[in-house]
Amino acid sequence: MTPHRPLPRLVFGDGGIFAGQRTLPEEMAVALSFNGTTQAVMMATPADLTDFAYGFALTEGIAQPHEIETIETVAHPRGIDVQVWLAGPAEARLSQRRRTMAGPVGCGLCGIDSLDQALREMPPVPRSEFHITPAQVMQAIAALPAAQPLQDATRAVHAAGFWRGSLLAVREDVGRHNALDKLAGHLIRQPAATGAILLTSRVSIDMVQKVAALAMPVLIAVSAPTAHAVALADACGITLIALARPDRFEAFTHTDRIKESADVR
Amino acid sequence: MTPHRPLPRLVFGDGGIFAGQRTLPEEMAVALSFNGTTQAVMMATPADLTDFAYGFALTEGIAQPHEIETIETVAHPRGIDVQVWLAGPAEARLSQRRRTMAGPVGCGLCGIDSLDQALREMPPVPRSEFHITPAQVMQAIAALPAAQPLQDATRAVHAAGFWRGSLLAVREDVGRHNALDKLAGHLIRQPAATGAILLTSRVSIDMVQKVAALAMPVLIAVSAPTAHAVALADACGITLIALARPDRFEAFTHTDRIKESADVR
Repeated sequence: MTPHRPLPRLVFGDGGIFAGQRTLPEEMAVALSFNGTTQAVMMATPADLTDFAYGFALTEGIAQPHEIETIETVAHPRGIDVQVWLAGPAEARLSQRRRTMAGPVGCGLCGIDSLDQALREMPPVPRSEFHITPAQVMQAIAALPAAQPLQDATRAVHAAGFWRGSLLAVREDVGRHNALDKLAGHLIRQPAATGAILLTSRVSIDMVQKVAALAMPVLIAVSAPTAHAVALADACGITLIALARPDRFEAFTHTDRIKESADVR
Repeated sequence: MTPHRPLPRLVFGDGGIFAGQRTLPEEMAVALSFNGTTQAVMMATPADLTDFAYGFALTEGIAQPHEIETIETVAHPRGIDVQVWLAGPAEARLSQRRRTMAGPVGCGLCGIDSLDQALREMPPVPRSEFHITPAQVMQAIAALPAAQPLQDATRAVHAAGFWRGSLLAVREDVGRHNALDKLAGHLIRQPAATGAILLTSRVSIDMVQKVAALAMPVLIAVSAPTAHAVALADACGITLIALARPDRFEAFTHTDRIKESADVR
């Protein structure tokens, strides 16, 4: 299924009114079901759904990738059901999750019904030798647009990318959380590598939580963070870079990982 | 409480590295509890929380404003609990909502665990004589920035506005759904008036659902809609205008409400 579609519209402007088409992104209800119980319904771009299931399971604390036995995608008239089957300890943990979770585009902390649970404790990211130079931060952001075909077609979706030496993977979605979960699901099925997560969006608490769950030491976002997201990145040992452009960026936490030259390492 | 805070950061750019501060928006866990049960935890801007409770109750189908007896805001160490008490039929409906809902910034369909429920049927908006000229659409969008003090301070939050002849109300939040719910909660406690809802964000399905729940005939957004959001606006009888700028905009559905002159009415 193509994740975008041309639709008719009228354009009003200085030159008068004219008819035409605009290519818009698809958005579908995607249910994420674990061992037969729906944990979330997200409004998402219907692509990379296996990545989405792996990533959502990890970043929401449901399961590690090795605990996932099968993933099946079932189309329904009103949406898509992604059916994940878990084995072992994940199955037991799942039955303890009393809450059913649901959310649309942009939903990251679903199903956690108390303030304490919403602000779940995230462990600090493990120490690593990974660092990045200022020039690399700007190069990484500059490389992102060429890896966003859905954004190129629609100008209306978010992306999450992984950088280590170069831009190695990108996932797109109408929801910024979904894009990050899809990227996470891709990364955790590759040989482990530490690097920087790139986001085209702003940085709220739940985006930092997901990056912490991925154990990535550097987060680089195009837009601004919230004050609370900065505090959480600081506590988790994550280098938070935001307002990143091809010619400038701002760094809020753990700036020691930004080193002018690789020699400093 | 001030909804923003200056935090230290390093700026990297052509001119070298310099230290300073950037003002960032606050983001807090806000629990919305109805008759003692938490229905949602949203990561939100801690302002206009009474509006938020009224609007969330309406747009998520929990209660009409006259069914709300009291709203109390209780600060906890890790967030704010907004405790809403309902009377009458709303109380009975509430007990039928088996699901607990939760979500962060940008969450609008929380707690609804099936695909069908996520795509709940919305009634068409009632017929009204309201219409808007192309010049008024562009004037409304042009008027929005001056009514966004939190955005002016932080460049990192969304806004939802109400226009009828002029820009009559604006609410801001780190989450676009929250901004719309806060505006909704303000509007439904005023004498009824039909007009246009303005959004600084893109338009996903759940934003159209909320506008339909408010029974507003016109939705004007700065960013693009999804294909599904266009379909829902069409079905609900809502005039969907997007990619709106002070000098141009695009109209996707029910364009008959856009009339060149008031005389055409």
